[in-house]
Amino acid sequence: MRLDGAEARRRFAGARVARLASLVDAGHPHIVPVVFVVIDQHIYSAVDAKPKSTSALRRLDNIRVNPAVSLLTDHYADDDWEALWWSRADGDARVIGVDETEGVAAVDALVERYSQYREWRPDGPVLAVAVRKWSGWSASQSP
Amino acid sequence: MRLDGAEARRRFAGARVARLASLVDAGHPHIVPVVFVVIDQHIYSAVDAKPKSTSALRRLDNIRVNPAVSLLTDHYADDDWEALWWSRADGDARVIGVDETEGVAAVDALVERYSQYREWRPDGPVLAVAVRKWSGWSASQSP
Repeated sequence: MRLDGAEARRRFAGARVARLASLVDAGHPHIVPVVFVVIDQHIYSAVDAKPKSTSALRRLDNIRVNPAVSLLTDHYADDDWEALWWSRADGDARVIGVDETEGVAAVDALVERYSQYREWRPDGPVLAVAVRKWSGWSASQSP
Repeated sequence: MRLDGAEARRRFAGARVARLASLVDAGHPHIVPVVFVVIDQHIYSAVDAKPKSTSALRRLDNIRVNPAVSLLTDHYADDDWEALWWSRADGDARVIGVDETEGVAAVDALVERYSQYREWRPDGPVLAVAVRKWSGWSASQSP
């Protein structure tokens, strides 16, 4: 069954990891796993800038050129396909600095959400996705 | 650490679920979870054609126009970020019929791999991705 926007957002916000699809260029999609936090209609994730890998920086350049992204969270269970569900967020991404007000709030929320970030607070840029549409699907009614 | 192509392929092939990023159009990525099987340098997944949802069929049309896809498998563990890894396959997708030789072999392998498929053998088209590049990353040396 299709999930309505509110339910898709609720399930997405509760997941611990998402996969982010963006564009390398107009013809090629790219996909990476991200940890994230949902605040209102935005999804935030920190870009690991140490070491400043060229591929991570290239990804940020790509997003400036092609801001459209799609993020997915899902539940998979080998022994129970009735429990399967997924939730998708489509939107536009911006890169913001960790020193900007919005960036500080996002990193604070990420540190609160992931204990691992308490050992090394993210200091790279923050990816902010303004969600245009939440959608999803579940094999059954619950959870 | 970066994974070499052979190790990235090995980890990808052993995962139970992948996420497939394709293009809705030249400007918008799209992402869905898929079960799959790796045979040589191809990744195969079955498209659920019952009910023949317009969105699934639209996705196949999109792939015919924009064949470039990116698939990801990953391991996430909230309590141990040293165990994190991901593996990505970039390639070009084709849609093949379940009655074609390649389609029959792919569905046989999917049925062998996923017990759930033994109850209802997939009868929709098969997505075949010819992998151009396997890449990946692992937080630590093992597994």
